[in-house]
Amino acid sequence: MQTLTKNKIKLINSLKSKKYRYKERLFICEGEKIIKTLINSNFKIVEIFATREFADNNNLSDFNFTIVSDIELKKISELSSPQKVLALVKIPKKNIENVNFSDKLTLILDKIQDPGNLGTIIRIADWFGIQNIVCSTDTVDVYNPKVVMSTMGSVFSINIYYTELSDFLTTHSKSNIYGTFTDGKNIYKTTLPKTGFIIMGNEANGISTEVEKFITHKLAIPSFNKSKTAESLNVAVATAIICSEFMKI
Amino acid sequence: MQTLTKNKIKLINSLKSKKYRYKERLFICEGEKIIKTLINSNFKIVEIFATREFADNNNLSDFNFTIVSDIELKKISELSSPQKVLALVKIPKKNIENVNFSDKLTLILDKIQDPGNLGTIIRIADWFGIQNIVCSTDTVDVYNPKVVMSTMGSVFSINIYYTELSDFLTTHSKSNIYGTFTDGKNIYKTTLPKTGFIIMGNEANGISTEVEKFITHKLAIPSFNKSKTAESLNVAVATAIICSEFMKI
Repeated sequence: MQTLTKNKIKLINSLKSKKYRYKERLFICEGEKIIKTLINSNFKIVEIFATREFADNNNLSDFNFTIVSDIELKKISELSSPQKVLALVKIPKKNIENVNFSDKLTLILDKIQDPGNLGTIIRIADWFGIQNIVCSTDTVDVYNPKVVMSTMGSVFSINIYYTELSDFLTTHSKSNIYGTFTDGKNIYKTTLPKTGFIIMGNEANGISTEVEKFITHKLAIPSFNKSKTAESLNVAVATAIICSEFMKI
Repeated sequence: MQTLTKNKIKLINSLKSKKYRYKERLFICEGEKIIKTLINSNFKIVEIFATREFADNNNLSDFNFTIVSDIELKKISELSSPQKVLALVKIPKKNIENVNFSDKLTLILDKIQDPGNLGTIIRIADWFGIQNIVCSTDTVDVYNPKVVMSTMGSVFSINIYYTELSDFLTTHSKSNIYGTFTDGKNIYKTTLPKTGFIIMGNEANGISTEVEKFITHKLAIPSFNKSKTAESLNVAVATAIICSEFMKI
């Protein structure tokens, strides 16, 4: 069993910044439920910081762990009310080169900025059995603590890659590249395939012009509001409706 | 033109609390885009507090308005970066007694707690042409500033009522009362009506037992993830998929 040193507090707090997460190749994960999911995943846990209560109720003997007081936990937590346990986790190496994208549906995210939206989208992908998400390099970092938390543990099941989308789409150029646009074809009246790419765009600006040129099928989620007071759907909500339409049997 | 007095600052800040909102029957609304929607709605604006820039670019002559400096705006804003304009708005009286619920679909919310979820659900209802939302009295208040903001203006188009759900469902007892449950019938394989109630439950606990007994049709959104790593969908995401299935032609 370890102790919570000043250096560790400093290290953990530095991981709130993307720069230090990738320098150390570490991220933090907080909360009872998500850490139980983490323990059962393939992610490599470097250290667990748990209150006595959490340690007594969970078998941590396979892990390098430190008992912390509520006051100590507060020093390393991102939350206003820390939740009994925090883990220091290795950022896995994900090699996009070896992935076969041709026999399944893949989500592509073009500059998603909001951590809550990315987390919710990962949870939706997990629900609908989508295994891979490819993000533009300027999409919010998946190991941002707010993203990790809002995935509710789905971050440990889905493969997430960051890459230049223009290069990726040039390499994997195919006929089934879908995106939503206001002038697209009604998704409810379109026959949708079980393989291909579904591209979701930035919250304010939608799909960028560089990425739009790769799209082979423009779709639209029609509004049923005759007075058109709702201008748009939140990107995570739109992702849910689109995944539902693509995946349902 | 008015000035921003100390008493007004005090009044506006008190409206962050539900108790004072209902005592004064006033709420606050912030941000350029949403205030443009507000101006075109039927809501009664008591006063607009705008920067010189906003006032110069928008015709406020029909309104009681006050020019404020950025420093003054900061004193009344909920936001870390205030957005040029804030309005003080009357809470409308909504009389549930006179509403005909029998010829349309209505959303019923059973104890939704998160302001962002309620705001997103209101935006979804607006998109799908659902005019009325009936909330349990313990659902988060729609005039909570975070809810108002996350509706992106849809709060001004949808009728939202708060009432005791057991009493409401007893009075409006009908054959088309839908709710989602893990053991419900696959929504993709169910013929759905264009009239009735769709009940959405609390984020952590789902539909309460008191409300469950009124449900005539239990539905499920099936997961397509064979390893079942995603335990559930966020309630706003589930609402979107359900509304999409009910409303699509």
